[in-house]
Amino acid sequence: MSLTIRLHITNTAQLHSTIKKCHYRTKFKTKPIYHSNPFAPYLLIHKEMASLSSPSNKGSLVVKSSLIEPDGGQLVDLVVPEIQRAAKISDAETMPKVRLTKIDLEWVHVISEGWASPLKGFMREDEYLQSLHFNCLRMKDGSVVNMSLPIVLAIDDEVKERIGVSNNVALIGPNDDLVGILRSIEIYKHNKEERIARTWGTTAPGLPYVEEVITPAGNWLIGGDLEVLQPIKYNDGLDHYRLSPQQLRKEFDKRQADAVFAFQLRNPVHNGHALLMNDTRRRLLESGYKNPILLLHPLGGFVKADDVPLDVRMEQHSKVLEDGVLDPETTIVAIFPSPMLYAGPTEVQWHAKARINAGANFYIVGRDPAGMGHPTEKRDLYDPDHGKKVLSMAPGLEKLNILPFRVAAYDTVEKKMAFFDPSRAKDFLFISGTKVSVQF
Amino acid sequence: MSLTIRLHITNTAQLHSTIKKCHYRTKFKTKPIYHSNPFAPYLLIHKEMASLSSPSNKGSLVVKSSLIEPDGGQLVDLVVPEIQRAAKISDAETMPKVRLTKIDLEWVHVISEGWASPLKGFMREDEYLQSLHFNCLRMKDGSVVNMSLPIVLAIDDEVKERIGVSNNVALIGPNDDLVGILRSIEIYKHNKEERIARTWGTTAPGLPYVEEVITPAGNWLIGGDLEVLQPIKYNDGLDHYRLSPQQLRKEFDKRQADAVFAFQLRNPVHNGHALLMNDTRRRLLESGYKNPILLLHPLGGFVKADDVPLDVRMEQHSKVLEDGVLDPETTIVAIFPSPMLYAGPTEVQWHAKARINAGANFYIVGRDPAGMGHPTEKRDLYDPDHGKKVLSMAPGLEKLNILPFRVAAYDTVEKKMAFFDPSRAKDFLFISGTKVSVQF
Repeated sequence: MSLTIRLHITNTAQLHSTIKKCHYRTKFKTKPIYHSNPFAPYLLIHKEMASLSSPSNKGSLVVKSSLIEPDGGQLVDLVVPEIQRAAKISDAETMPKVRLTKIDLEWVHVISEGWASPLKGFMREDEYLQSLHFNCLRMKDGSVVNMSLPIVLAIDDEVKERIGVSNNVALIGPNDDLVGILRSIEIYKHNKEERIARTWGTTAPGLPYVEEVITPAGNWLIGGDLEVLQPIKYNDGLDHYRLSPQQLRKEFDKRQADAVFAFQLRNPVHNGHALLMNDTRRRLLESGYKNPILLLHPLGGFVKADDVPLDVRMEQHSKVLEDGVLDPETTIVAIFPSPMLYAGPTEVQWHAKARINAGANFYIVGRDPAGMGHPTEKRDLYDPDHGKKVLSMAPGLEKLNILPFRVAAYDTVEKKMAFFDPSRAKDFLFISGTKVSVQF
Repeated sequence: MSLTIRLHITNTAQLHSTIKKCHYRTKFKTKPIYHSNPFAPYLLIHKEMASLSSPSNKGSLVVKSSLIEPDGGQLVDLVVPEIQRAAKISDAETMPKVRLTKIDLEWVHVISEGWASPLKGFMREDEYLQSLHFNCLRMKDGSVVNMSLPIVLAIDDEVKERIGVSNNVALIGPNDDLVGILRSIEIYKHNKEERIARTWGTTAPGLPYVEEVITPAGNWLIGGDLEVLQPIKYNDGLDHYRLSPQQLRKEFDKRQADAVFAFQLRNPVHNGHALLMNDTRRRLLESGYKNPILLLHPLGGFVKADDVPLDVRMEQHSKVLEDGVLDPETTIVAIFPSPMLYAGPTEVQWHAKARINAGANFYIVGRDPAGMGHPTEKRDLYDPDHGKKVLSMAPGLEKLNILPFRVAAYDTVEKKMAFFDPSRAKDFLFISGTKVSVQF
């Protein structure tokens, strides 16, 4: 990770000074812009960051932090230390093989870095059932963590047959590479209809994730303890944006954040979002926080075909930041590696919970989060207010501060983006994230 | 209530002695048997019971008990004291009217007696969403109670229009009688598809409760605080079996129960059930309890058309008891007034939770509880093991002891019912509750 970052650093001090001088209107740029992280200088200002990518230093990486605790008390990290890698590889070679799809691999990424802490692998049946029925898991000490999406790995009859009575399986990536190991496995039935109904609240045909992932999947689920041989990389020029929860926590600590507010999005940022994010920081400062840091955190995994592609979104985010609309000193932009399920109130809990694990104690929730149109009826699939309401009541998310989205629009009188004022509704022009992707 | 009971009592002492002499083979009988409660004598042995039915004594009915605490700490009782009744009635006359179906009235009954404690009326949206997504409610003090079924009242556009901005509505029973009042109402959307999908884990056509209740219902739900003008009665000759949680608790206390184990059923009792219930008592005694009491608790509300009707079941239960298969001194048979949803693992939580409110700290869970065949596919709708698993992990049910059902069958060698021994499987003949309804 830090190697990738360092490629873009020529003169950190100079960049830092440039940023300060121009009142945060960052001028540094690499080509293409979306292959670099405009905040990379900040990541390297602190020398300790270099050690993050060195597996041999892994053992010493105990992050001491005043940030919100990760779920389960300790951030899960399932990447095996480099020194054990060779032994794990030869171990894996003796095991039955399970082939991962591209989206399975995104989940391996998510689990291995601790976004789903305290989950330590694909769900076994007791975790799956709790997730499906209660959107949370009860821990051994009686505490509860939120877990609204079943994070599961499907296999078909043939693979199940091949596994037989083996206790462990090797996971093979879409490019035939050995990705990791699943240990002490448990295989159980994959009742797709029930999974879909309880996750989406509908079984109507046309749900993007269902069609892409669940319908073609096998009739069995395999759970177990995950070990990943090395950090998951995509080699798409965006890996340097893919900061793990551990890296993000380290960075928040380095910046001495006393509040971290996360903003999830899967569309381009527009000036309405920017107004909201800046206003949130202002309000956090007013309420007594000294240094609230924004985690601008676009979703980087599977999205439906008509969503804006990730590379375009990242370029757009970079340009917004270059234009100084957001303050690079108090903003970290990074990719959230999860796939998108479009499961509305159920999914928004996952989006929030994962950000707790990355250190965020404030979460900005939009109107109709993770929502979409009903696939077969002319209406929103979810009540646009349910996401916010469900999030505010969700078990295991009590420690997170939910900040409801304030709607911003273009004020044709003031000729700028402003929070919508219903008393003079006709003065406002509404734009949506999907519509403004070409405006930046 | 006690008036109804007293009708069947001629000579309590004599009956009691008869029962003792014949080793619990009760000989008393009224015609028809299913119009009487064979345990009525026991209900009256304790003089204090008579006060239960006297509304004027209501205020003094603070049940001091070593039984399990009801959910929320206090048993809800929403029947208005008699002294306030006239005022409430004239108050209700000024309110917009909402007409209840037969099944709505069953829910009014359930809520009013505290089976759903701490629920104090039909759910408002925040309760509905928590029930739908989390199967539990978070209380103000941060504690959690189980609440797996949405207990809601649907109205259509016309009724909503008629209610307008009123804050309270009057509830009118299926027989045009004024049943109660719903106060501080909230009206919100009834998304039937989502409710069905999240409750049943399927939206396949043919779910009995959905077809009977949800499909014909209106597109709005109305929540609020319930007041019931007088205890709900059905005048079907079975009301004396309908003991409220408060009455049951009082009875358990009177019998000095130190454990109460509940058995929910919607089919006739067969000797396999009886073996299980007697064996459960034996095991509870062995584990140190001095006086475990069985609550044999058939469901009395809506059931699907091909289930055995309630009056037939109650007659059958009485006969089983008369035959001395179960010990009347340590058994209470009563009707659980809830409708049946056939919602498998989601519903079994409701069945268990309601019994906590009635004082049960042990719950016998069967194979595939509240399950049925899939309405459109040739398979069980639910995995038969999921009910037991979900119940054992359900939020808010931690204080309940779950006793998994041990399968009993007819042992053709020993020529009696016995627990199934897989090592000599061929010796056993299996019978189901639905098949043996004519055997008693």
